[in-house]
Amino acid sequence: MIQEGELINLYHNEQRKYLLKVKHAQFHTDKGFIDLTAIIGKNFGEKIVSNLGYNFYILKPTLEQLVMKVKRHTQIIYPKDIGIILTKATIFPGAKIIEAGSGSGAFTSAAAYYIRPNGKIYSYEQRRDLFENAKQNIEKNNLTPWVEISNKKIENNFEQKNADFILIDIGSPWELIRAAYQSLKAGHKLATICPSFEQLSKTVFTLGQEGFTDIETLEVLTRRILVRPNRTRPEQRMPSHTGFLVFATKISQ
Amino acid sequence: MIQEGELINLYHNEQRKYLLKVKHAQFHTDKGFIDLTAIIGKNFGEKIVSNLGYNFYILKPTLEQLVMKVKRHTQIIYPKDIGIILTKATIFPGAKIIEAGSGSGAFTSAAAYYIRPNGKIYSYEQRRDLFENAKQNIEKNNLTPWVEISNKKIENNFEQKNADFILIDIGSPWELIRAAYQSLKAGHKLATICPSFEQLSKTVFTLGQEGFTDIETLEVLTRRILVRPNRTRPEQRMPSHTGFLVFATKISQ
Amino acid sequence: MIQEGELINLYHNEQRKYLLKVKHAQFHTDKGFIDLTAIIGKNFGEKIVSNLGYNFYILKPTLEQLVMKVKRHTQIIYPKDIGIILTKATIFPGAKIIEAGSGSGAFTSAAAYYIRPNGKIYSYEQRRDLFENAKQNIEKNNLTPWVEISNKKIENNFEQKNADFILIDIGSPWELIRAAYQSLKAGHKLATICPSFEQLSKTVFTLGQEGFTDIETLEVLTRRILVRPNRTRPEQRMPSHTGFLVFATKISQ
Amino acid sequence: MIQEGELINLYHNEQRKYLLKVKHAQFHTDKGFIDLTAIIGKNFGEKIVSNLGYNFYILKPTLEQLVMKVKRHTQIIYPKDIGIILTKATIFPGAKIIEAGSGSGAFTSAAAYYIRPNGKIYSYEQRRDLFENAKQNIEKNNLTPWVEISNKKIENNFEQKNADFILIDIGSPWELIRAAYQSLKAGHKLATICPSFEQLSKTVFTLGQEGFTDIETLEVLTRRILVRPNRTRPEQRMPSHTGFLVFATKISQ
Repeated sequence: MIQEGELINLYHNEQRKYLLKVKHAQFHTDKGFIDLTAIIGKNFGEKIVSNLGYNFYILKPTLEQLVMKVKRHTQIIYPKDIGIILTKATIFPGAKIIEAGSGSGAFTSAAAYYIRPNGKIYSYEQRRDLFENAKQNIEKNNLTPWVEISNKKIENNFEQKNADFILIDIGSPWELIRAAYQSLKAGHKLATICPSFEQLSKTVFTLGQEGFTDIETLEVLTRRILVRPNRTRPEQRMPSHTGFLVFATKISQ
Repeated sequence: MIQEGELINLYHNEQRKYLLKVKHAQFHTDKGFIDLTAIIGKNFGEKIVSNLGYNFYILKPTLEQLVMKVKRHTQIIYPKDIGIILTKATIFPGAKIIEAGSGSGAFTSAAAYYIRPNGKIYSYEQRRDLFENAKQNIEKNNLTPWVEISNKKIENNFEQKNADFILIDIGSPWELIRAAYQSLKAGHKLATICPSFEQLSKTVFTLGQEGFTDIETLEVLTRRILVRPNRTRPEQRMPSHTGFLVFATKISQ
Repeated sequence: MIQEGELINLYHNEQRKYLLKVKHAQFHTDKGFIDLTAIIGKNFGEKIVSNLGYNFYILKPTLEQLVMKVKRHTQIIYPKDIGIILTKATIFPGAKIIEAGSGSGAFTSAAAYYIRPNGKIYSYEQRRDLFENAKQNIEKNNLTPWVEISNKKIENNFEQKNADFILIDIGSPWELIRAAYQSLKAGHKLATICPSFEQLSKTVFTLGQEGFTDIETLEVLTRRILVRPNRTRPEQRMPSHTGFLVFATKISQ
Repeated sequence: MIQEGELINLYHNEQRKYLLKVKHAQFHTDKGFIDLTAIIGKNFGEKIVSNLGYNFYILKPTLEQLVMKVKRHTQIIYPKDIGIILTKATIFPGAKIIEAGSGSGAFTSAAAYYIRPNGKIYSYEQRRDLFENAKQNIEKNNLTPWVEISNKKIENNFEQKNADFILIDIGSPWELIRAAYQSLKAGHKLATICPSFEQLSKTVFTLGQEGFTDIETLEVLTRRILVRPNRTRPEQRMPSHTGFLVFATKISQ
């Protein structure tokens, strides 16, 4: 049974799906409003009808939605990239993670989601406005207990040590590689995301000089297929580029 | 400190990385053997030298390695596809998952990894040889406590009900969609992976008839970038196709 | 020296490039008008200034522009696909080509362009409006001498025989494969373009039954790279799908 | 009727297709030998049987085969890239083309093929061994009348002026951009192919400084689809990268 404060995906169709926290309020859409109070006590998958007679479904939110529906003040890390990070990094339930560059809190949310119930992600954001927005996004996503977010510029080192994984998502990732080395457990992974080739190559060369091995760079592409009777085909345009992902492993020196 | 029975990634270079369980034994490679006993009590990131004088590093295994290093008796679900499933499905720590078609236990391992510590994946494999192999792979990956694997062909329904997520990975996924509907929590996700277009379209049309909505089909491509001084470029060949992923949400009827 | 009636690419910037035939007229843009008469006698590469003081360059049109600037009443065959056809088909200067489905005359123009000066393309379009538009596009492209376009539905056979290459670009390509076989030189290529998988598989199976061998199917993707100081990266979205190309060779029976 | 000296594609299956010049000789394969003399006077599409009883077909060669079957002493420009060049460059029947870096003569052959009957490509190769090999490849492809190939390193300028199109395919394309500017007709295209990002960015920035406009960079990917009853799917691995293509237009200064 859905509780007050729980997250739901209020779904009418592909264009109208809303990530909401259930509370005593009305939610307005161009297909009429929904009384969210009425959702308390219902189950996922049930239908609810707007005052204008349109059907909405109460669906269980996915991690993708938590990520995509953050209020964006920056380019976010997209689910396709988060997915590959979840497999190639040393993230796991209970992990201790450091993130440099909270941005809009998209990756922060994803990491918090999968390190539950005993992990923690320490996230740093130097810009005040981004910090405030990320904090709210994480709160909206009900993930605050697993996140410690700080409005601080990292200069030479992170406060935390012995992290299981560190993500650097700032414009000049190479500046924080030495700091990351100090705070990362040996044998564990660091990752960065670099929009451009210039950032990518500078990052990779710095990693090689600063005690990292098994350095791998890749990009992820997703392409939707539209399945229709006798007209099944790939979509006509697709996302081409978000950023290049770099993974590297710290070795002891 | 690394314990006996713990999983490690014994890393020499890109071509020589081994997923091993630490025990009182020698491990032989073409660069000499390593006495695994000597690893007990060491930390990740430390170096160990083979009897022939080659350096190996003791690294923390990633989920990708758990998946890629399963002994394969079938085509596995690859990390790139597992990553996107981890974001688009209703998987989370504590989730109850059903899998039809254990195959080699690659996805089984991935799901078990991220539903810890309180979740469970119920996996079904009708072929005896695959069942045995998958079971051993899961055991090798130290994930047995979170997996219940059965050597059984699903006919009309799964024994479990109220699953948070169901994956169907068999040659004719449409045959199990009705059964999956019965066992899946409403508002939650079902996914299938289909190598061919014919399987894909039959699956999608069946989903539409059997009470599912928000049906999405996509494929994931990954492309490595080789970063070298003045010679940075994408790799010359890349994986092109593993399967099409289908995601759909059950609605109450 | 540029003659009256010659085609030019009047270029201001990426968003403002116009394929024009030089004549005694003014050409109006949002950056002012150009007196086209003044272009007669100039050379390619020269600058011309609009009445509002904006610079335009007189550039030599490329085949891509001839194709992309046709007035479109249908989806056209794109340059990326035309390019691969130019290498995989039996097209060459002097070739005799048949096209079923003129559409907007995009491929017709491309084939006419490269079979000059002695080749001929016979193009069929059953819809009157498309036929008229395609004819005008070919005329606009100054390629009429190499094209014979007919407003006719092909039922059982093409009038021409001994074609060096046949392209079928209609919704149900399999219906014309037998006719194409009759009109194609043995040992030469037939190609079709199929937007959907269902069309593709039906076409390929029919080709195999109707005396064709060496059947190959592929799709072409192009991705732009944006080269900027320290910010070089692939474009963020790219074309994903136009159609699947099928190539097959007729063998004597 | 096939003449002595004519090029044919002797086709048994996907793995056994041979680009040959018909002459009085035997051609040996692992499926037996073929007496090529017997092909004179036959037509394309006819069958010929090897001494071991295997069927071969005499097919019309495509441009793709001329390109792919050159004896390779270097990485060649692939048909997918040649195709896009044929649409985006100022190549046409009768064109005068300059190529810096003949390599194995793959692009040289393609350009010669489509500028016939009245065009000419002037190709430069500084390495003696490559020059000799390229020359033989062009001769093998029956394209010698349209090619003038020189074993010479270009220092400051090309001998020819007023070229309709120039291709630079050397390791440091930026070194020849000034020379190319001098020899290219204004308003016409120059292209380069760059394997790496570093080459690409240096080339693009130099073009911008040396009087070129409308600079475009892209890469081309092709993906085969395997069409089989109920098992239609993309191939499992695909070519990922050959090089980045750059196109730019000279403007008068």
